[in-house]
Formats: sequence, structure tokens, C-alpha cells
Amino acid sequence: MESASQDHARQPLYFEDLHVGLRYVTGSRRIDEAEMVSFASEFDPQSFHTDGEAAKGSFFQGLVASGWHTAGVTMRLMVESGLPIAGGLIGAGAEIAWPRPTRPGTTVHVESEIIELRPLRSRPDRGIAVVRNETRDENGDVVQVMTAKMLIPRRSRLQSAET
Amino acid sequence: MESASQDHARQPLYFEDLHVGLRYVTGSRRIDEAEMVSFASEFDPQSFHTDGEAAKGSFFQGLVASGWHTAGVTMRLMVESGLPIAGGLIGAGAEIAWPRPTRPGTTVHVESEIIELRPLRSRPDRGIAVVRNETRDENGDVVQVMTAKMLIPRRSRLQSAET
Repeated sequence: MESASQDHARQPLYFEDLHVGLRYVTGSRRIDEAEMVSFASEFDPQSFHTDGEAAKGSFFQGLVASGWHTAGVTMRLMVESGLPIAGGLIGAGAEIAWPRPTRPGTTVHVESEIIELRPLRSRPDRGIAVVRNETRDENGDVVQVMTAKMLIPRRSRLQSAET
Repeated sequence: MESASQDHARQPLYFEDLHVGLRYVTGSRRIDEAEMVSFASEFDPQSFHTDGEAAKGSFFQGLVASGWHTAGVTMRLMVESGLPIAGGLIGAGAEIAWPRPTRPGTTVHVESEIIELRPLRSRPDRGIAVVRNETRDENGDVVQVMTAKMLIPRRSRLQSAET
């Protein structure tokens, strides 16, 4: 608790601190074409992600980010400026959808909302938070919806385990 | 169809070529610690993904790959040696879970199976294939399950559209 006064806004949150409906908005980040091509060259080497000319003849009619790149940028924003969960952001799994592609030069941010909280029977020192994370472009249009099941430490249990 | 004789095994597959129960196994790839740290430094900068020493005191008790890195490596394997869908691997969304973390030095491959096929009313030139993709380590243990909804072109429609 000593650190609370140092950075009130980023004070670590425990399961007991959360409630359904809690919302959090991250900072934003621009994703340019070179970055899209670089990511895709390593993890999703398909021409509609790596070659602007070839992409014109594809399903997308132009270069688009790999969905997994959009997911990575989303995670980065959540780690840097999203819900400051104590012990870090640990996901057990997620549902992810890309309602529209992310085009070069798009600036995205993430809007998160806790939609469910439940205890975890197998781990009494943790709870599960179901968090809906919408990645939106500068027009507010949603490029990704990622609903994650996150493991959240309980305050009392974690403190006693750490001392 | 002229290319069929050149590379029979990688002949592009259309919706009409698929059936529920069709299985496909990719090649494999080793993921080392430096690669995990590099990915996480850019997309998931949390100490249990970027710092082996600090990770020892974390939930994971050691360095683990970001789940999004496991997802990226899975995608790479699927693009290079998975189901060769005509026009590329285009996902509308997915469910993803990480039943166990991916540790440094793990060698993974992907086992894919088509579990559902259905027409797409909004796009008569395409169908949806639901594909369950298990990413397994060298012991056969599953580190990721990713069940994707994929857009698959129909043979007749795509051919007429391209001529």
C-alpha cells in the first residue's frame, strides 16, 4: 500500500477492487505500414499483409494488418495504460474477432470493461474477471473485440503469500 | 488448375474440397528465450515474459512466452505448412486458450481439424470453416487451442470472379 501515494492512477488493482461495469481507456498508438509488414513477415507471411501491390488484388483490396498484430498492439496498450492488475495481466484465454481490418496509418486505442467477476474454485487466491476489450480506430470504429478471461489475485491471499 | 501437378500436396483448397474431420499437421518450430523476450518487449512487456530472473518470482515461476507470441508462431506454422486454403488464411475471429504456458526452448507444431462447415449468407462466394488448431509441444501437450472461423472461397464463384 505504500506505493499508492506515488502513483494513485496506476495503483495495482486486486479482485476486491473490481466491479462489473468498471471501464478503462488506454492511450493510443499509430500502426504504420512498415510495422505491419515487419510483423507479418515474421508471423503471418501472406501477401495481403506484406506486399501493398499484391494486396490490391486480394480479398482485402489493399494492405491490412495481421489480426495477430492488432492483438499484439492491443496487448501493448493494455499493459502500458490499461487496467493495472496486481501482478500483471494474465489471461487464461479469450474470444477475439476482427469486425473490420486495420489499415496502414490507423491510430488505435483500447476501451475495456469488466463484464463478469467470479471466484475460482481451483485457486482460492485468485478470481476470474471477464473483460471485454474493444480496439477502436480514430473514428471510433471497432477493429477488434477481444473478450478475455483474466486471472486476478485476491488482496488478502496475495499479501499473506508474499510476506 | 495448371499448378496442381507442380505441388500436389500444397494444391489450393476451396470450400468444396473440405469436409468435417479433415485433419492437417504442420511442421514444427523451436521457440527460444531470446525470441520470447524480443516479442514481449514489443507487444507484451511484462517481466514474466521479458526477464528470466524477475520471472522466477512471478505467477509462472519462470520465463514464459506471451500467449500472443504463441499465437503468432502458430499462425506462421499454419501459413507455411497448414491447410493450403485458396487465397490465403483469412480469419473472422477465434476462441483462444492457453492451457499451459510455453517455456523457452519448446518446439511446437500445430494439429488442425475442420469441425464445422457452413455457407455464408452474406457472401455467396464464400463459406465458413470452423477449424480447431491445437498447438502442441514435443511431448504432445497442448499449449494453445485456437478455434478459428475462417472465410473459404468457393471454387466456382472465385474462378468466375477472377476471369
